Amino acid sequence: MKQMIAIQGIPGSFHHQVAIQEYGREAEILTFSTFEEVAKAVFNEEATVGVMAIENSIAGAILPNYDLIDRYGLKIIGEYYLSISHQFMVLPGQKIEDIHEVRSHPMALLQCKAFLNHYPQIKRIDDIDTATVAKRISEQKLKGVAAIASEIAAEIYNLEILVSDIQSVKSNFTRFIFLGKTAQPKDQTPNKASIKITIQNKAGSLARLLTHFSNLHLDLSKIQSIPVIEKPWEYAFFIDLVFDNYHDYHEAMRVAKAEFGELKILGEYHNRKA
Amino acid sequence: MKQMIAIQGIPGSFHHQVAIQEYGREAEILTFSTFEEVAKAVFNEEATVGVMAIENSIAGAILPNYDLIDRYGLKIIGEYYLSISHQFMVLPGQKIEDIHEVRSHPMALLQCKAFLNHYPQIKRIDDIDTATVAKRISEQKLKGVAAIASEIAAEIYNLEILVSDIQSVKSNFTRFIFLGKTAQPKDQTPNKASIKITIQNKAGSLARLLTHFSNLHLDLSKIQSIPVIEKPWEYAFFIDLVFDNYHDYHEAMRVAKAEFGELKILGEYHNRKA
Repeated sequence: MKQMIAIQGIPGSFHHQVAIQEYGREAEILTFSTFEEVAKAVFNEEATVGVMAIENSIAGAILPNYDLIDRYGLKIIGEYYLSISHQFMVLPGQKIEDIHEVRSHPMALLQCKAFLNHYPQIKRIDDIDTATVAKRISEQKLKGVAAIASEIAAEIYNLEILVSDIQSVKSNFTRFIFLGKTAQPKDQTPNKASIKITIQNKAGSLARLLTHFSNLHLDLSKIQSIPVIEKPWEYAFFIDLVFDNYHDYHEAMRVAKAEFGELKILGEYHNRKA
Repeated sequence: MKQMIAIQGIPGSFHHQVAIQEYGREAEILTFSTFEEVAKAVFNEEATVGVMAIENSIAGAILPNYDLIDRYGLKIIGEYYLSISHQFMVLPGQKIEDIHEVRSHPMALLQCKAFLNHYPQIKRIDDIDTATVAKRISEQKLKGVAAIASEIAAEIYNLEILVSDIQSVKSNFTRFIFLGKTAQPKDQTPNKASIKITIQNKAGSLARLLTHFSNLHLDLSKIQSIPVIEKPWEYAFFIDLVFDNYHDYHEAMRVAKAEFGELKILGEYHNRKA
């Protein structure tokens, strides 16, 4: 079956890069302007897979995306860690001395501040995202303007990378997840799961839950409480668990459900973190 | 001493509203365009207090702001929960039939979607923030354009609120914190603390830490793991603790430091959450 991959953003975005790296160049890419449209496309089976950034090392978890997965009842079928590299790109033939302005997403400009400080004559301008600037430079043949975007953006829009990997933080990962309408048959036994659990706010109940997980050799790779709760005496948590033994995990979920509160398994998949 | 309050955003922003509600209209407001400049102003003692949004019910924790507090060594001296209400405002005399476009921050437009759906003729346009649009309508006497912003923005920029409280989610709180250069003498014994703790990734160490807190009657009001770690065998967590007995809290911190890892107390203050 041909994969139809829904992404947020235009061709050349980091979401596009992840889709290609995971599903290959033959997969069909459906682009949407919001994450909600991506979730809907998977829900409506217009797309077979949705790609969604879920957390990054700078801004942390992207909670609204968790909410979308929850609300549309989608399943996390896999994950991908992309090391974010920024490329300084221009119309072919332009030299760095020709450039008087650089445009990108504010976060990308911030991540490349140290590099840009060497070129005080280049004005930094916040723009809507990284790939859109590359597209605009290409389509409007903009001279004197540089984009900061992904390698794939340079390739798609025929721009020349003048300087590679200009980001200051070298270990800037974004974690992406792949979403399906239902859980998929697995090639491998899953060794990671994402859950949402709502527990009664009895003193120490989270401590007891985590002790229970620990006794069954589940490791936490992520935990996040959900800040504002309609029911003030309950807490909800998004938790990622890593484990070696699927049966232990299964048993942990059984007890969590029976003794701790409402449990929703957002997905079981293969751990990609090194 | 006159309070000099550093905020991110322009007059009329939600940060401004929090500053006024907490420190009164006589406090001097210093406006900055980034959170980093707010942190710097407190660090340099240009401001006595900084106001910073730290989490909201929709997007979750604002991790880069935690990073700023940590990096500038500032102290959290208090907190404030603001119920975010959006007002639909126009130049005085304009009626809703006159309006063909509404501009605001994308999140504000999203929060008022149900209301805006009743007016399909009004085009929604993403803009930089809420108060800036109000300011622009006022200064340029823009007819036909509405802003969605705070009550204080309407007051400052002499706009007329045509429809009040147009947000769909009625319990949309943003939590703000007040920052000082050092911990302040307290009128009341603190009953809440924000800490950052880095613990060795030995199986179950977080479970043990939370059990220890629970035994000393500390309640967790928030926990968040920090996603990407330079040292892959350590985890760091931002945790908010609520307690009745300051001595129990103090003892818990002593043990946390001695037995669990690196501890940083970001602030001790009075719990404002209902």
